[in-house]
Amino acid sequence: MVFEGGEGSGKSTQARRLAERRREVHDVMLTREPGGTPVGVRMREILLDPDSDDVHPRAEALLMAADRAHHVATKIGPALASGRDVISDRFMASSMAYQGAARGLGEELVRDISLFAVDGLTPDLTILVDVPVAIGRERAGHRGALDKLEQEQDDFHETVRAAFLSFAESDDSWVIVDGTLSEDEVATLIDKAVAEKLGW
Amino acid sequence: MVFEGGEGSGKSTQARRLAERRREVHDVMLTREPGGTPVGVRMREILLDPDSDDVHPRAEALLMAADRAHHVATKIGPALASGRDVISDRFMASSMAYQGAARGLGEELVRDISLFAVDGLTPDLTILVDVPVAIGRERAGHRGALDKLEQEQDDFHETVRAAFLSFAESDDSWVIVDGTLSEDEVATLIDKAVAEKLGW
Repeated sequence: MVFEGGEGSGKSTQARRLAERRREVHDVMLTREPGGTPVGVRMREILLDPDSDDVHPRAEALLMAADRAHHVATKIGPALASGRDVISDRFMASSMAYQGAARGLGEELVRDISLFAVDGLTPDLTILVDVPVAIGRERAGHRGALDKLEQEQDDFHETVRAAFLSFAESDDSWVIVDGTLSEDEVATLIDKAVAEKLGW
Repeated sequence: MVFEGGEGSGKSTQARRLAERRREVHDVMLTREPGGTPVGVRMREILLDPDSDDVHPRAEALLMAADRAHHVATKIGPALASGRDVISDRFMASSMAYQGAARGLGEELVRDISLFAVDGLTPDLTILVDVPVAIGRERAGHRGALDKLEQEQDDFHETVRAAFLSFAESDDSWVIVDGTLSEDEVATLIDKAVAEKLGW
């Protein structure tokens, strides 16, 4: 299953909490994109390091997909095949929202590239931790230095948020959780969703 | 225009010679893939450095396309727009031959990804410098340390060669040059081709 959301939504914290809880009863691999593999970490640096040259949007979309292809083939796929549960902090919907919608490349084109990357593997459940952009950005700002995508303007992040919400509203394998609630309240809603959808 | 060919075909030498000759009468940008830009150099290291982790074939194809997208958007496109001639050592046909054919991902899928990357820019002329695999590999071996693709087995390189030949035979914008001839003879054939096809 996958967590999606904008900057400062709290999804990474919630992914970690869910992994800890699930680990009490089942083997879990917690991972993330971009940068879930050693090769992916090098791609992540090219993509997000504020000191590296700007990557053109088409190259950004393809590099995110390259990271994902390697991640699925060498880490997520083998983990699932050996019976482990996988929790990924971001997956293909992030590319559709950030590069497809906010960078304006088109959600369908970016989805098609991601479908090539994942070779048929799509998430059984995606939890969208949704927060208004102003709240998310304030939280992300408190964490310190912002990466390249975090540094984008508010309208960029508004487009990302609207894209995530539209994906969630048109797909039964998504659950929207209100990320403005307290961390414990959000965790309770997530526990309920994974129990209902995955039997966790 | 683009030079394509297998390892040790002599295409990089011929690209440089043609650039030098053309520069006497017109502004020329000589470039290459992967690694034609600063961002691309970092991608090239991930792809080809024998000491870096193996990149899964789907990720390899996407990373080559990311390199190409950035190359076209930030270097080739602006050069052409300002009236410069562009000579590229490898372009999208290399992805179709190496990742599409030899890695078995499918030439059409890899071509579609490249078409997204180049955003409509396709070469006006592609010169295939063709040599039998055994000759090319012997020449490449003499250059010293081999990169990851050069280290592949003979049948991999035979598939690459056959793919290049089939592209050239089905497309009028390609010219095949016999790379087993002397360096000067090959250069003369290339001069003839660019004169006929491009008026250089």
